[in-house]
Amino acid sequence: MKKNIKKVNAAILIIGNEILSGRTKDKNIAFISNWLNSKCGISVNEVRIIPDVEKKIIENIRSLSKKFNYVFTTGGIGPTHDDITAKSIAKAFKVKYGFHQEAYKILENYYGKEKFNDGRKKMAKMPIIAKLITNPSSAAPGFITKNVLSLPGVPSILNSMIDNCKKYLIKGLKVHSETINLFTVESNISKELEETQKKYKKFVDIGSYPFFRLGKIGVSIVSRSASRSYLKKVEKDLTYLAFKKEIKIFKI
Amino acid sequence: MKKNIKKVNAAILIIGNEILSGRTKDKNIAFISNWLNSKCGISVNEVRIIPDVEKKIIENIRSLSKKFNYVFTTGGIGPTHDDITAKSIAKAFKVKYGFHQEAYKILENYYGKEKFNDGRKKMAKMPIIAKLITNPSSAAPGFITKNVLSLPGVPSILNSMIDNCKKYLIKGLKVHSETINLFTVESNISKELEETQKKYKKFVDIGSYPFFRLGKIGVSIVSRSASRSYLKKVEKDLTYLAFKKEIKIFKI
Repeated sequence: MKKNIKKVNAAILIIGNEILSGRTKDKNIAFISNWLNSKCGISVNEVRIIPDVEKKIIENIRSLSKKFNYVFTTGGIGPTHDDITAKSIAKAFKVKYGFHQEAYKILENYYGKEKFNDGRKKMAKMPIIAKLITNPSSAAPGFITKNVLSLPGVPSILNSMIDNCKKYLIKGLKVHSETINLFTVESNISKELEETQKKYKKFVDIGSYPFFRLGKIGVSIVSRSASRSYLKKVEKDLTYLAFKKEIKIFKI
Repeated sequence: MKKNIKKVNAAILIIGNEILSGRTKDKNIAFISNWLNSKCGISVNEVRIIPDVEKKIIENIRSLSKKFNYVFTTGGIGPTHDDITAKSIAKAFKVKYGFHQEAYKILENYYGKEKFNDGRKKMAKMPIIAKLITNPSSAAPGFITKNVLSLPGVPSILNSMIDNCKKYLIKGLKVHSETINLFTVESNISKELEETQKKYKKFVDIGSYPFFRLGKIGVSIVSRSASRSYLKKVEKDLTYLAFKKEIKIFKI
């Protein structure tokens, strides 16, 4: 089998000054990436974090939506003045921005006519060609405009919505991974690791990540492939390498 | 005072498949961004996370180093086959890649001639015009090539090295921030918040971030400015707003 069959990829665009400034630690990147790979066989190939600035959002939406099969945006779809994602996406694609009928109804139903104030109404404004991503926890829907899926920045709300993205996505080949932890240092195995990577170049990506755990130094060797049988082969080679070099192994 | 005086900015380029795949949660973005702002008055304006692919590294180094005053890279400077940051940066700037005399001496001293194997020697290979960033915890130095500072991906090592970047950086205007937490929902204050932002447009950036804490819903209003006196003005306006609307405030 070939490594590239049916590869579907995505980019994540995190929109928010609070992440850039370091005030808020991002929790969405790893979550979306894990979900896309395990549930849809889609690999995240690039992530960008940008400020709440219209020009930047437009530029990045345009370039990422061309380069990748899908773009996931997080943040900037709430009711306040710094929530400019929806408007910027409409400008990026030159499509009409305004009240989305279906979104308006959902929100009006949720809040009741009396409490449906201007701030809340703003959350029904988006590219009018967009399709909605249902939000089971706080009603305000996400939306998909062409190949761009827009989700909120609050992790708990995003997490509750992610499964509703599935129906809009083409499935790709799932990438599996195997990790072997070796109690050694990278430079002790770098030559053999390079040879192993060369041997399986077409089928497996091998990464090496040093760690410090429980006061011990080690290296996690992570192999990633769409083929479980090739992963097994790499695992055997690495286990043999550890045996020859008298390196202790542990698997998590 | 003007908001834009002496603004110095930076981008962070995280190089590593393990972050993109969601296997490893990034810890470096918030750390570097906080350090740059608090110690150097430099704002991080963009972050990108890309795979260990030479072409991608070259493209991103070229475009980010043109757009920003500084670029910080993390990851890919160790001894294994997937550590290709140094070589890719040399290619991006079309400068010679090879053993860096000073780095070679540091590493040879640290390991001793006998244990200085090929994997370890690789960590002395970099753009030969680079200046070194001392690594007090594991010797292998980081380096600065033109306006690009390259640091390792392991957070504890990166943290130990960051202060040694300072001498290469021009200081900018420090951005201060003030947070007011209001026990309300965003849509209840979005109109007034927008007016406040408009009033102080030139001097203060105001962001609004919903939170759920101790079972209560609230909004953190974060104001950022180089001017403490303008921050104080915004704080007063927001406190008055909360008083008028009978919203409970708490400050952390």
